[in-house]
Amino acid sequence: MNIDILSIFPRMFEGPLSESIIGKAIEKELVSVKVADFRDYTDDKHKHVDDYPYGGGAGMLLKAQPILDAFEAIKKEKPETKKRVILLDPAGEKFSQQKAEELSKEEHLIFICGHYEGYDERIRSIVTDEVSLGDFVLTGGELGAMVMIDATVRLLPGVLGNEVSAVTDSFSTGLLEHPQYTRPAEYKGMRVPEVLMSGNHQKIKEWQEKEAIRRTYQRRPDLLEIFMMSDEQKKWLAEVMVEEKHTDEEKE
Amino acid sequence: MNIDILSIFPRMFEGPLSESIIGKAIEKELVSVKVADFRDYTDDKHKHVDDYPYGGGAGMLLKAQPILDAFEAIKKEKPETKKRVILLDPAGEKFSQQKAEELSKEEHLIFICGHYEGYDERIRSIVTDEVSLGDFVLTGGELGAMVMIDATVRLLPGVLGNEVSAVTDSFSTGLLEHPQYTRPAEYKGMRVPEVLMSGNHQKIKEWQEKEAIRRTYQRRPDLLEIFMMSDEQKKWLAEVMVEEKHTDEEKE
Repeated sequence: MNIDILSIFPRMFEGPLSESIIGKAIEKELVSVKVADFRDYTDDKHKHVDDYPYGGGAGMLLKAQPILDAFEAIKKEKPETKKRVILLDPAGEKFSQQKAEELSKEEHLIFICGHYEGYDERIRSIVTDEVSLGDFVLTGGELGAMVMIDATVRLLPGVLGNEVSAVTDSFSTGLLEHPQYTRPAEYKGMRVPEVLMSGNHQKIKEWQEKEAIRRTYQRRPDLLEIFMMSDEQKKWLAEVMVEEKHTDEEKE
Repeated sequence: MNIDILSIFPRMFEGPLSESIIGKAIEKELVSVKVADFRDYTDDKHKHVDDYPYGGGAGMLLKAQPILDAFEAIKKEKPETKKRVILLDPAGEKFSQQKAEELSKEEHLIFICGHYEGYDERIRSIVTDEVSLGDFVLTGGELGAMVMIDATVRLLPGVLGNEVSAVTDSFSTGLLEHPQYTRPAEYKGMRVPEVLMSGNHQKIKEWQEKEAIRRTYQRRPDLLEIFMMSDEQKKWLAEVMVEEKHTDEEKE
């Protein structure tokens, strides 16, 4: 997979792209990531990439020209690839695991990171996807691009080790993960639940399934509705609902 | 404001914390950000920070000890501050602008970044907030912490220049932003709407208000429901709804 990023803060990507699992994926050449400073493409003699908005108003807007020209340069360099051009925009579609899966099947992703207060509307003419991380405001699109790249690249074949990818992540089952414990069995007065140390695999599996349902019921009941439950899971849910009702009453 | 980050990939933060608006806020000493490698706190002779889960299963879990001890060291260094301890967790509350505003009023934030498949449940004993960026899976909590720090620090007094902070952002009005344009008036055959170049401030303001409502209606109608509309805005919305209906019919 090829990834190009258009940003005026290319140095922001240095740490995130050189460390951790994404850094290793780049090293192993499972993905190629290039960051272009679109300031290099401006035809403004003062190297400005922004200008005042038509119609007045405070703040500056990113101009269309440097970004469209940087995009043309990428197209020239790799004319044959099918391109998804992703604009980080608070008004865009919300990023999701489904979107990461969709992007992970593409051959060439181009991320455009906005900054300042906004950008010239005509930048959207080259964009295939307008995506937002969530309902919050960031100083620029760089961190959003990093998040989307991380979520996407980890899905590429060979990026995660087998022992990791084989594990059930949150969201991939539709339930939140059950609580987990590692050694020591007691730490600062906090003990690991007995059942997990019992060696009884059936009992452990049941405890994990039930606690996954409890956590989802407590925190994200909306996930339970969309999840196709087995009869056993329905039984756990019914038990959890009774138990949690008692806990609530005790608190009152 | 003091921010501490606990991570096993401290170098990931180098670019994001040195560049852009957050880098400047640190330079101006409006916020102090320290990254601690919690591997430095492990009492394991091989410097491991993870171990196998009780009850079996694939993958490794972060142990409680290194993180709890790193937290104790921060507490000793700054005993007097009121601390919010934020755990990045896909099962947590979803991060939002409201959460960023809440965090921006605190004096000391501590972010715990998980990695691998999960962590020992007892880490939660020191946590005040479990927060998730959204419904997607990342390789670790580092990028989530960066996003939350960016959204929070930009709200601190003095971080954004006046000309920027005075501007109406998406979400702060309850509506998405209207389209914006800067020079040139025509670029690659794409023209700026005439009204914006008319100099008629009343007409420009009306166009911007109406287009903000159109964009919100098209992309995030859920935001319109929670927004207290003026009579004029209701008029714009009614017009937009009729116009968009015609556009849809033409497409069919």
